Amino acid sequence: MAVTLLDTRISPFGMRVRIALEEKGVKYEYREEDLRSKSPMLLQMNPVYKKVPVLIHNGKSICESLIAVQYIDEVWNENSPLLSSDPYQRAQSKFWADFVDKKVYFPGRKTWTKQGQELEAGKNELIESLKLLEGELGDKPYFEGDKLGYVDVALVPFYSWFQGYETFGNFSIEDECPKLIAWCKRCMQKESVSKSLEDPQKVYDFVVEIRKKLGLE
Amino acid sequence: MAVTLLDTRISPFGMRVRIALEEKGVKYEYREEDLRSKSPMLLQMNPVYKKVPVLIHNGKSICESLIAVQYIDEVWNENSPLLSSDPYQRAQSKFWADFVDKKVYFPGRKTWTKQGQELEAGKNELIESLKLLEGELGDKPYFEGDKLGYVDVALVPFYSWFQGYETFGNFSIEDECPKLIAWCKRCMQKESVSKSLEDPQKVYDFVVEIRKKLGLE
Repeated sequence: MAVTLLDTRISPFGMRVRIALEEKGVKYEYREEDLRSKSPMLLQMNPVYKKVPVLIHNGKSICESLIAVQYIDEVWNENSPLLSSDPYQRAQSKFWADFVDKKVYFPGRKTWTKQGQELEAGKNELIESLKLLEGELGDKPYFEGDKLGYVDVALVPFYSWFQGYETFGNFSIEDECPKLIAWCKRCMQKESVSKSLEDPQKVYDFVVEIRKKLGLE
Repeated sequence: MAVTLLDTRISPFGMRVRIALEEKGVKYEYREEDLRSKSPMLLQMNPVYKKVPVLIHNGKSICESLIAVQYIDEVWNENSPLLSSDPYQRAQSKFWADFVDKKVYFPGRKTWTKQGQELEAGKNELIESLKLLEGELGDKPYFEGDKLGYVDVALVPFYSWFQGYETFGNFSIEDECPKLIAWCKRCMQKESVSKSLEDPQKVYDFVVEIRKKLGLE
């Protein structure tokens, strides 16, 4: 098969690539990686970071999820454009997707891997970031307008992680950002998203398992 | 004027945007920011990060240097393309530019802001990263081939910081990566680069000033 994805079901970064492939209607072979025992193919295809997801197309690898989503948008460009053709709109979309990497993923991780002041700082930064994103969304159905786009693809995978963030951070994202949660639910009505996101309970179980290893449970 | 750049001369990120504008022959107004007293325009134009560089085009701001370089390449697309039109080559270029942000900037910073084990770890990571980049360069004159391209623009600004890294890290980048230094010198023969890079002595003076504030001098 021409397209293969090396991934783990719980990876929010992998979910991005899966949504993009589904949106474009690209058939692909999915290979679940065991990150405790990485496959020779993963080590060969992503020698720099040795991380999932790795998109393999015609034998060549594309690493880093946002770069892979852009690649998918450029190669399968006939339907469901994710990025606008307008350079300014493209730059804005890239800015907010990059913001998700820097200001949602890292503080989110602190809510379930840290304690005390570090946990509080992570939680506060996460809430601040989500409020900024909610402001950017405004009253639009999706970040880029009427259709699912690049920023939606970048952010919505974290919806499956929210239960973990909220439980161990002891807060409610819906209380803080009700419009953002309404947007998450809107995205989930799309099959490309609902098929690609892991069950939040399974993500939660993974979070608990890692917390045990960290001595936090 | 239609194009304005909010920047500081010593910023390697700002240098990227300056090189891209010079490559395209775009005339722009340069505004040096005092980061100890940020201008109202900077706070307004980059409300999320409040950092330089900020490219302003027709009153709209584009933040984050690599996003600005891509924007410049897309808007002024008639000459000196920085990114290939081939999706796979584009993805590869974006991967290595992103690698510079993650694996050159941060460890480089540790060589002059840290001491002891942290400094050594930063120095070793920096050398490892530069060797990987040197391998990616191979025997090509520039990263993307025969002409200055996106990865060159992303990486070469750090050349003006190498003196600071080497002095306080107590090592020689040329000893470790002679081909990479030859590439730096090749890039500097281009006016777009030599005009845009700050004098290494001025970067070094800045590094010393910050070290004094950190109590390291």
